[in-house]
Amino acid sequence: MHISERTKNIPTSPIRKLAPIANKAEKEGRKIYHLNIGQPDIETPDSFFKATREFRPKVLEYGKSQGREELLEAVQKYYKEWGMDYSLDNIYVTNGGSEAISFAVMTTCDPGDNVLMFEPFYANYKSFVGAYNIRINGVPTSPDDGYHLPPEEEIEKYIDSRTRALLISNPGNPTGVIYTEEEMKLISRIVRKYDLALIADEVYREFVYDGKFKSFGSMPELDDNLIIIDSVSKRYSACGARVGCVISKNAAMDEQLLKCCQARLSVSQMDQAGAAGLYTTPKVYWETVRKEYARRRDAIRTALAAMPDVVFSQPKGAFYVMVKFPVDDIEKFAKWLLTDFSIDNETVMITPGNGFYVSSPELGKDEARLAYVLNCDALKRAMYILGEGLKQYPGRTR
Amino acid sequence: MHISERTKNIPTSPIRKLAPIANKAEKEGRKIYHLNIGQPDIETPDSFFKATREFRPKVLEYGKSQGREELLEAVQKYYKEWGMDYSLDNIYVTNGGSEAISFAVMTTCDPGDNVLMFEPFYANYKSFVGAYNIRINGVPTSPDDGYHLPPEEEIEKYIDSRTRALLISNPGNPTGVIYTEEEMKLISRIVRKYDLALIADEVYREFVYDGKFKSFGSMPELDDNLIIIDSVSKRYSACGARVGCVISKNAAMDEQLLKCCQARLSVSQMDQAGAAGLYTTPKVYWETVRKEYARRRDAIRTALAAMPDVVFSQPKGAFYVMVKFPVDDIEKFAKWLLTDFSIDNETVMITPGNGFYVSSPELGKDEARLAYVLNCDALKRAMYILGEGLKQYPGRTR
Repeated sequence: MHISERTKNIPTSPIRKLAPIANKAEKEGRKIYHLNIGQPDIETPDSFFKATREFRPKVLEYGKSQGREELLEAVQKYYKEWGMDYSLDNIYVTNGGSEAISFAVMTTCDPGDNVLMFEPFYANYKSFVGAYNIRINGVPTSPDDGYHLPPEEEIEKYIDSRTRALLISNPGNPTGVIYTEEEMKLISRIVRKYDLALIADEVYREFVYDGKFKSFGSMPELDDNLIIIDSVSKRYSACGARVGCVISKNAAMDEQLLKCCQARLSVSQMDQAGAAGLYTTPKVYWETVRKEYARRRDAIRTALAAMPDVVFSQPKGAFYVMVKFPVDDIEKFAKWLLTDFSIDNETVMITPGNGFYVSSPELGKDEARLAYVLNCDALKRAMYILGEGLKQYPGRTR
Repeated sequence: MHISERTKNIPTSPIRKLAPIANKAEKEGRKIYHLNIGQPDIETPDSFFKATREFRPKVLEYGKSQGREELLEAVQKYYKEWGMDYSLDNIYVTNGGSEAISFAVMTTCDPGDNVLMFEPFYANYKSFVGAYNIRINGVPTSPDDGYHLPPEEEIEKYIDSRTRALLISNPGNPTGVIYTEEEMKLISRIVRKYDLALIADEVYREFVYDGKFKSFGSMPELDDNLIIIDSVSKRYSACGARVGCVISKNAAMDEQLLKCCQARLSVSQMDQAGAAGLYTTPKVYWETVRKEYARRRDAIRTALAAMPDVVFSQPKGAFYVMVKFPVDDIEKFAKWLLTDFSIDNETVMITPGNGFYVSSPELGKDEARLAYVLNCDALKRAMYILGEGLKQYPGRTR
């Protein structure tokens, strides 16, 4: 039977690509510190489980396609507290942030259209657009200036007649960058000048370690162009609930989003009840979590700074840092760490950086994304092992 | 901002299109018998809720993209009891049958390719293929011969160089047809002759009222071409769990399905635990449910037979019947029932049939799908109201 070119062209997730090798090592008894995946070790608030225990209908029926009312209202209230006003008709519950992104790109782009993204970007964006035959125009940013944006006229060079949207994550995955107010204004000018959709993936909004986060949703001039991607996955350490949402004030967009929702009928009812429960979690939860991540951020930064010939982004938000290593080939290095190296039968898993780039296979070949999702002791140990691994790796270039 | 042609072209679900009108009538205090949606009123087994209550991890992590092992094993065991052997690598858990269909069509078809479907077909199939710019080649079947298949050479006329798959639901939604063994052999010959994927939506497998169900999975000659769509939604009256799966013995297909799963990370962990629980439900459950639906099927058949000038399919499986009414325009009739007609402030909601066709806007214009998902008393009352409505409807043609 025929296999579509579309699917064949979708790359294997770089975050999960090495999983079989890691699984094998773990089955053989090796302990692996997972710096490869954004899976927090933070406890999920009991409010989720309390709400799901209480959700006991006689018949587990389809829900409303748009989402359960209690959850839509909880999201609305959450945004109000951030100073953003959305009507319930602006909010559409999705199967995680993943489906929110899928809906955003499929409603704005036809096959052959393209989306502007700043490289490096979250690797799964490739799958979401690839599924719909949408291309990516990758705008390079560099570790040397902390992955911040190039000048406006430089960005404009990547816009053509088929560019329909700009997809950006802020706080940035995989770089940990937080865009400055100036950069946000620049983006706002560009999307309005070319009437692009601005797809703002702000799922790491709560994870900002120096100063306060500013959402694209707080810029009223963007109301017509903005599509916000959101999720409870990281906000409440509930990745396995698969509850996100997509938000837009553009009425024509809302009409399409509702159709997208109706096509797949509804999102899990119980998880939506649980997610609504999560939104009742006292705000002190985030304070505690943020402090914990700030400590981890400091720990990983200190460890990286002590490694010779290593260049890395200053992680300001989310829980990732993009690192340039003095190695021949990051995939080889990542595999070698899993198969050929260990200290006391312990090793580390990192995500090769090339998967986060699209414009050239050479890009990211010596970079990796590290997720600081482990407690400080585990993280320090992991970074020690990584540092020793780097010293001994035969493909070291310096 | 630009709205894609792709999404604009996706029709609003005929099953949900009249929902705003129905909601308004219900808010005004009118009771509506919902014959429009395949939402069973059968109680969900407690095994679901028992399993979800017991699922209490400290951290609600992402699951394995392919699915939770306990659920994969439960599905494998379920199929073994049907006499079908699948390895765990053949099974991929999805967000309901909906996502299973999306994966099946996106992995087999590129934009501009087409899928063969027998009209009338489940209306949401249009959305699933439309999202990926895949076309539908609709092969007509007729209420006059119970929506059974046309001759082989007739079907072949609808196959062209861009036909990649044949998507069929058996038991049939919306017709309630069960294909005969001869018809299944015919389909098998066609898909092998043209090397098409056979996407078999068998989610209503347990709902067969005369005789035994035969799965396409029991025909070994189809191993390389078959993709099975499955779901717990109807099987265990758990539509709101959103847990399905897609199954294939074709290794090249499995490789693509895994990538599809990885792209959206995982399915809800708690619902998967619940679904695994459902598979431990004693088999007597189905006997009870089947008997109940058989009674309803008989009730709706009797009621329809008593209506003059009404033609309907002989409902043999699933819980739908497709009915041809002597009316000018089925959408008008369906709306009129909601807004202009009632008996003791009660009325019925039906799904206009034109949404189940694609090859001409004239098709299905006097047909409707009725779902017999209400208990016998409610169903009899609903059919009485429908019959009286039909008598009084001003647009009656005979």
